[in-house]
Amino acid sequence: MQATAIIAASGIGKRMQLREGESKQLLEVGGFPVIYHTLKAFQMASSVKAIYIATRLENRSILEELAAASGFSKLKAIIEGGKERQDSVYNCIRAIEEEKRLTGASAEIILVHDGARPFIRSEEIDEIARLSMQYGACVPANRPKDTIKYVGENPEFFGETLDRSKLLQVQTPQGFQSNLLIQAHEQAELEGWYATDDAALVERFFPEQPVKIFETGYHNIKITTPEDIPVAEAIFSQISTRS
Amino acid sequence: MQATAIIAASGIGKRMQLREGESKQLLEVGGFPVIYHTLKAFQMASSVKAIYIATRLENRSILEELAAASGFSKLKAIIEGGKERQDSVYNCIRAIEEEKRLTGASAEIILVHDGARPFIRSEEIDEIARLSMQYGACVPANRPKDTIKYVGENPEFFGETLDRSKLLQVQTPQGFQSNLLIQAHEQAELEGWYATDDAALVERFFPEQPVKIFETGYHNIKITTPEDIPVAEAIFSQISTRS
Repeated sequence: MQATAIIAASGIGKRMQLREGESKQLLEVGGFPVIYHTLKAFQMASSVKAIYIATRLENRSILEELAAASGFSKLKAIIEGGKERQDSVYNCIRAIEEEKRLTGASAEIILVHDGARPFIRSEEIDEIARLSMQYGACVPANRPKDTIKYVGENPEFFGETLDRSKLLQVQTPQGFQSNLLIQAHEQAELEGWYATDDAALVERFFPEQPVKIFETGYHNIKITTPEDIPVAEAIFSQISTRS
Repeated sequence: MQATAIIAASGIGKRMQLREGESKQLLEVGGFPVIYHTLKAFQMASSVKAIYIATRLENRSILEELAAASGFSKLKAIIEGGKERQDSVYNCIRAIEEEKRLTGASAEIILVHDGARPFIRSEEIDEIARLSMQYGACVPANRPKDTIKYVGENPEFFGETLDRSKLLQVQTPQGFQSNLLIQAHEQAELEGWYATDDAALVERFFPEQPVKIFETGYHNIKITTPEDIPVAEAIFSQISTRS
């Protein structure tokens, strides 16, 4: 079974609002850019044969250097990101389709991952790819630690309390049989329809398709705000100590 | 306006499954027990006049020493925790009622807090107390960072995707006008009804009572698993640097 990975990495620098004069173009954890850890996990996952990254044009050369210096041989293309995350993923899908047209190369599974989740493990990637093959779609998730409530009709007040035991916090990489994901994205593009994540896109156009739950721990965080960096450093040192 | 704080602290040691031979009775962050930071925040909050802690009996003497050594003069009583968190809070409510019967002392607001959330700030406590006075009930919350989905009917698969923009992750301290919280707990005790949190209890018995949202940052975490400790240390050093 072969998987192609799409890594949405448009926000690996800018969104963090680095201080002016800060020279780092990419956010770092454990002395390496966040995206380095992400790429390394996919490079080392045996199910993954090719990696496409969607990012801002200004990150292109630095990513090329990083990949060359680190021996990330599976990195196939660095694609310009789109307006929304979904557009970025779709740009990669078009590149994958083009590659298939030209060379006949195709993978059974596409895994879509947030570049800002550097702590996913190679074994987890392989397991999600395997389950995606078996069930058609598989998405990692864990249980919320806090009670979840709705915002009320008047948004200053709470609405209903949800039954936490029935809820899951969804992460990435989200894995799909390739045709399923490609068709869902093409249909969404036609209709101009945007979803929260790729699983929601597939659910929308293939409501009969079950999406398998892969329960993970709490290490697979998304680094989205400057406050996340010390937390990420803490998780990184735990992971480094363990392995 | 005067507030009484109830701190549910039954799990401040044991639930973390400290390694055998580990001598610390209480979990530490930044060189002090987690509960020290929690108590300090409430001690320094000007709205708070009295603090009741519910905990396991074996934590009693160590908490007494800690409070004496740290000058936590507002600590009124250390109460034995009950079977569930709600029972522990109810035990404190009974102690508060008893105190009122004996001395006439009563507060307009009761704040219920998780002992395992050490990073709440004194100003936040005061603001929640003030808003509880104004609206009858006020609960801190923040926006989930991940997409939230339901577990499906077959629990191996996902159900519906929720609209994340309408969801909030609920924290503590949860503030209520005292009579509201006391009556809700007494009614719940009579009916043997258990809720996820105190706000859900009040919602159940006072469905017309609005609960004000107080939006906080992501520092007010609950320390529930050993993996949380390095993350807590990271947040602690950020807070220490800032102040």
